[in-house]
Amino acid sequence: MINVGVIGYGYWGPNLVRNFIENPTTNVLYVCDIDESRLKALKGKNPQIKTTTHYKDLLKDSNVKLVAISTPVSTHYKLAYDALRAGKHVLIEKPMTSNTSHAEKLIELAEKQNLMLFVDHTFIYTGAVRRIKEFLSSGEIGELYYFDSIRVNLGLFQHDVNVIWDLAPHDFSIMDYLIDEKPVFVSAIGVSRVHEKIEDMAYIAVKFQDGLIAHFHVNWVSPVKIRRIIIGGSKKMIVFDDLSPDEKVKVYDKGVTLLDAPKDKIYKNLIQYRIGDMYAPRIESTEALKVEVAHMVDCIKHKKKPLTDGKAGLRVVKLLGAAQRSLKKGGVFVKI
Amino acid sequence: MINVGVIGYGYWGPNLVRNFIENPTTNVLYVCDIDESRLKALKGKNPQIKTTTHYKDLLKDSNVKLVAISTPVSTHYKLAYDALRAGKHVLIEKPMTSNTSHAEKLIELAEKQNLMLFVDHTFIYTGAVRRIKEFLSSGEIGELYYFDSIRVNLGLFQHDVNVIWDLAPHDFSIMDYLIDEKPVFVSAIGVSRVHEKIEDMAYIAVKFQDGLIAHFHVNWVSPVKIRRIIIGGSKKMIVFDDLSPDEKVKVYDKGVTLLDAPKDKIYKNLIQYRIGDMYAPRIESTEALKVEVAHMVDCIKHKKKPLTDGKAGLRVVKLLGAAQRSLKKGGVFVKI
Amino acid sequence: MINVGVIGYGYWGPNLVRNFIENPTTNVLYVCDIDESRLKALKGKNPQIKTTTHYKDLLKDSNVKLVAISTPVSTHYKLAYDALRAGKHVLIEKPMTSNTSHAEKLIELAEKQNLMLFVDHTFIYTGAVRRIKEFLSSGEIGELYYFDSIRVNLGLFQHDVNVIWDLAPHDFSIMDYLIDEKPVFVSAIGVSRVHEKIEDMAYIAVKFQDGLIAHFHVNWVSPVKIRRIIIGGSKKMIVFDDLSPDEKVKVYDKGVTLLDAPKDKIYKNLIQYRIGDMYAPRIESTEALKVEVAHMVDCIKHKKKPLTDGKAGLRVVKLLGAAQRSLKKGGVFVKI
Amino acid sequence: MINVGVIGYGYWGPNLVRNFIENPTTNVLYVCDIDESRLKALKGKNPQIKTTTHYKDLLKDSNVKLVAISTPVSTHYKLAYDALRAGKHVLIEKPMTSNTSHAEKLIELAEKQNLMLFVDHTFIYTGAVRRIKEFLSSGEIGELYYFDSIRVNLGLFQHDVNVIWDLAPHDFSIMDYLIDEKPVFVSAIGVSRVHEKIEDMAYIAVKFQDGLIAHFHVNWVSPVKIRRIIIGGSKKMIVFDDLSPDEKVKVYDKGVTLLDAPKDKIYKNLIQYRIGDMYAPRIESTEALKVEVAHMVDCIKHKKKPLTDGKAGLRVVKLLGAAQRSLKKGGVFVKI
Repeated sequence: MINVGVIGYGYWGPNLVRNFIENPTTNVLYVCDIDESRLKALKGKNPQIKTTTHYKDLLKDSNVKLVAISTPVSTHYKLAYDALRAGKHVLIEKPMTSNTSHAEKLIELAEKQNLMLFVDHTFIYTGAVRRIKEFLSSGEIGELYYFDSIRVNLGLFQHDVNVIWDLAPHDFSIMDYLIDEKPVFVSAIGVSRVHEKIEDMAYIAVKFQDGLIAHFHVNWVSPVKIRRIIIGGSKKMIVFDDLSPDEKVKVYDKGVTLLDAPKDKIYKNLIQYRIGDMYAPRIESTEALKVEVAHMVDCIKHKKKPLTDGKAGLRVVKLLGAAQRSLKKGGVFVKI
Repeated sequence: MINVGVIGYGYWGPNLVRNFIENPTTNVLYVCDIDESRLKALKGKNPQIKTTTHYKDLLKDSNVKLVAISTPVSTHYKLAYDALRAGKHVLIEKPMTSNTSHAEKLIELAEKQNLMLFVDHTFIYTGAVRRIKEFLSSGEIGELYYFDSIRVNLGLFQHDVNVIWDLAPHDFSIMDYLIDEKPVFVSAIGVSRVHEKIEDMAYIAVKFQDGLIAHFHVNWVSPVKIRRIIIGGSKKMIVFDDLSPDEKVKVYDKGVTLLDAPKDKIYKNLIQYRIGDMYAPRIESTEALKVEVAHMVDCIKHKKKPLTDGKAGLRVVKLLGAAQRSLKKGGVFVKI
Repeated sequence: MINVGVIGYGYWGPNLVRNFIENPTTNVLYVCDIDESRLKALKGKNPQIKTTTHYKDLLKDSNVKLVAISTPVSTHYKLAYDALRAGKHVLIEKPMTSNTSHAEKLIELAEKQNLMLFVDHTFIYTGAVRRIKEFLSSGEIGELYYFDSIRVNLGLFQHDVNVIWDLAPHDFSIMDYLIDEKPVFVSAIGVSRVHEKIEDMAYIAVKFQDGLIAHFHVNWVSPVKIRRIIIGGSKKMIVFDDLSPDEKVKVYDKGVTLLDAPKDKIYKNLIQYRIGDMYAPRIESTEALKVEVAHMVDCIKHKKKPLTDGKAGLRVVKLLGAAQRSLKKGGVFVKI
Repeated sequence: MINVGVIGYGYWGPNLVRNFIENPTTNVLYVCDIDESRLKALKGKNPQIKTTTHYKDLLKDSNVKLVAISTPVSTHYKLAYDALRAGKHVLIEKPMTSNTSHAEKLIELAEKQNLMLFVDHTFIYTGAVRRIKEFLSSGEIGELYYFDSIRVNLGLFQHDVNVIWDLAPHDFSIMDYLIDEKPVFVSAIGVSRVHEKIEDMAYIAVKFQDGLIAHFHVNWVSPVKIRRIIIGGSKKMIVFDDLSPDEKVKVYDKGVTLLDAPKDKIYKNLIQYRIGDMYAPRIESTEALKVEVAHMVDCIKHKKKPLTDGKAGLRVVKLLGAAQRSLKKGGVFVKI
């Protein structure tokens, strides 16, 4: 049984607590939050869980083996640092930290302490993203052409971070998981309309070493809700529509090829379109966090490398940081 | 009766011919194309129309008052120039020319000759775009936040121009018509996958003087067909889905406002969302080209300023040229 | 404070308990179920609630003022009868009883005892159905033409009742609430495919006195999920799509009219179509059961007539009974 | 070369003429219509075609081998009869005749004369319906559970026939083609709202010998346009959405099965759902009428049995006749 301490019981914390309770090999021993009313609500339903407003109480408890941190991003580094120092495995909410040097220090410390460092890139554990990864790995898609992501909606303004730091970690982590190539340059432009200084919509472009482009539209002020990723490939193309109840992933046997012809004589009739079947595989609907918790247990027990470790967290933070720098410079491409 | 000569009877020419025939005050006198088989097919159905493979024959005919040019863009300037010199009013297919100086010269010449110069920005004459213009002009939308356009599909590769020159003229002309502000900077990135040197997908960002951003995704290699523009406003928001058979334009009474509060203390609970009714106005379904032809007749007869004149054409060419320059420089923002 | 006893803590019972807890003027005193494990789970979260496997314990408690019954339909009559006899107000899950005489007896007993008898036609308390009722009441829709309902899905087989008794109560209660006319004849046909004797899909037609027709498709073996009601009217038409997240109710300004003309000379050009705007009003999203509980409190406190009283329950049971009789006779129209 | 004479140049006739012109082995020799202005319009575009307002002129021309009849249904019998008597192969628009005895007489006459009798059940020649037939024939769908068809829209009122005779021939012909079982009983109910005596919406139920049910909703007064057929099977299910531009046919690997268990003890947990992949095969998009004309040529040249011969036409007329009789009797099931 792995005893877990959860720091932060706000928006996401209750999901962590529930999943650690439901997994038969984990147990929630301690929950910390600075808001006592939240702890009281938790205590009402789960009288067996210890609660505190001082996270160091939790770290002091030697029975706690894993600390899950779901607090505002600005506090992640300090909390994770202290938890690792206290000899705990650590799970950090995404984004991992607010800058890359913090992320690097945590990775270093975890290695030194021989402890596991997980970053909660939840989407990686959804049936949809795992299924897409299989398609990409199998070669069925062919060479990657582009990665186009839209995550727009009305709502959920954050008062402390802009829309990039709020929404893009989801899509960056998906891209990081799905694409093996290395992103090199990032450009971001955004608009602050509702609040003077916090961007509420942004476009981000990422260039990879081999010419691949990824593009992201994140938006808090859209009248319609869209969560869709299109992955263009030389053989097939994938559309991931996270809002579709039944057909989240569609694989299109569609493509275009140039027939062999003298390079200097490209005519329309040398273009060949392929419009074949479409296929929507059944997607495993297990809750992503449940899969993630089981994976964490497996990693801790068998000393396996986590799918979403500190390095994955760092890669996402690097992208966020570069996007932020580009944003400040009006959209110039900055090196990651 | 206005006698029309049409130069170019390929993809779009037949639509021009049909609409000039159907309008009771215009008559198609002459059609020119370099492909004789096309002319023969035309002649079979419309024996009364004169045909030629030499456009100068058509220009020489003093009965021709209006020349419509629907040939590849590289030939627009020469043909339009000669037609204006020959004393004809001119309609040019979009994009108007392949560079701005050509467009400027045509505008100048038309003014000097006291002739009408129309550019065929067909979308401006659709019921949907005209209705959206009314919403914007009425102030019902409030302050403009953003203009987000997607035009993606599998197909219709051009062998002589890239996806920007092929698809973006539609969206640039719509933006130019709907937004009164002046665009200042353009950035474009693209990918050439199928053909080595011709971009088959691109993202374009346009910055306006007052901070407004417009963004365009044009793509020939998308597995799904999307033609959608989202216009965010401070009061209402509009979604224009050109593929929806019945609800092309939706107006959302949705928005976000910050309640008055000390600027340094922005908390979540000071954000107010407004989620009201949605409204899909009936859209006039008259063929755009029919409306356009009637408008041209009206302009010629009553010496009115065309909705889509040479200057509108020039503005779109400027955007295209700037996008092309940015594309070559890897996406840096260039001044328009 | 109204103390409530809930009998049946299976699929729907927990929702009742939660809403009676959340309403500030009701209190859950007692919960009864024959399955002790369910009671134990409840007790874990709500230690203050008394539990029992004998419903008479609950009836004996003089502090219980309202008894909510969410058990299999075959047990409703006995439980409700005993509860009314014990002097309790009663809420019965839909369908109210398995035959009309039972429903009539309960109505009679409640009147005699001067007690409230509620039937849990939850849909009546949704924002969507209430909004549609407003449209119908206002006359905006004009004369009713037809009521077409589809509720199909894969799943949720019942082992004791067929698809009509399982799904049609929803749609019958909506129809009963929305349409003031009296239904007179019912026809039903169905197919039993998976189970030998239990129909898993059925079509039901209802004829009203004035010629209006209502039609229902209920289905447990559909590959796609559809929950849609179309209401045709002489002036406007309504589509209620319960699965649409944002546009559940759409009002179409569409219609057809015959122009005045000699009755014996009806030509196509005397038909006039009206295709106007579409309008999707904002729908109140408060949980239906929350609205219902508040309404029940209001009725009990102020001796008001419930919106979904025993008589409404009886009307739905009559429809179900008639549909069942028609089903057995192969689809002949039977009098209600 | 097969010379064709077309009688009736109204709504559908021009499509017939165009396709007979485009097929390289057929030639349109003669067109007859009672409206001279239509003939004049035709003549303008196709000066080589002979025209007449007297169909007997056309029948007298010995070069005409095939007569295509696209006139109001009430005239089909007389025209087809005379054409067969004149020794011509005949294609009749759907529905074949307005009663079964007429259809039977035409079949008899055609056989006697050793001539081909085609009925224009166009849908049978669409890529979608042919693909569905392949699925059904292959056994992939398993045992048929039900056939559910909806064809509703606002518009296209006929002044001489009701909505059943106007719309149901499409769906009856599709059902007739796809289902090998024999329909036995038909019930139909309808409503006449706009016009006093002509039903503008109707529901039709068809019972087959083995318990299979087919159901049809046809409607001229629907605010939304739906053209969808759901085919439930024991192994897979098909949804045919004729309005979907890209995914007209979807095959769902979904189903329900009862596990083997004592028949008297059916519990929920003995039900097994199968929710697998969905698959949208590429659909051949060749115009149905083009395929049909080629098929007719093939039948005439090689004396093959037509896919949609007089007997198929008769079966559809029988269904229409039975539906009509049931409609008049208020929806009782009548024997076909």
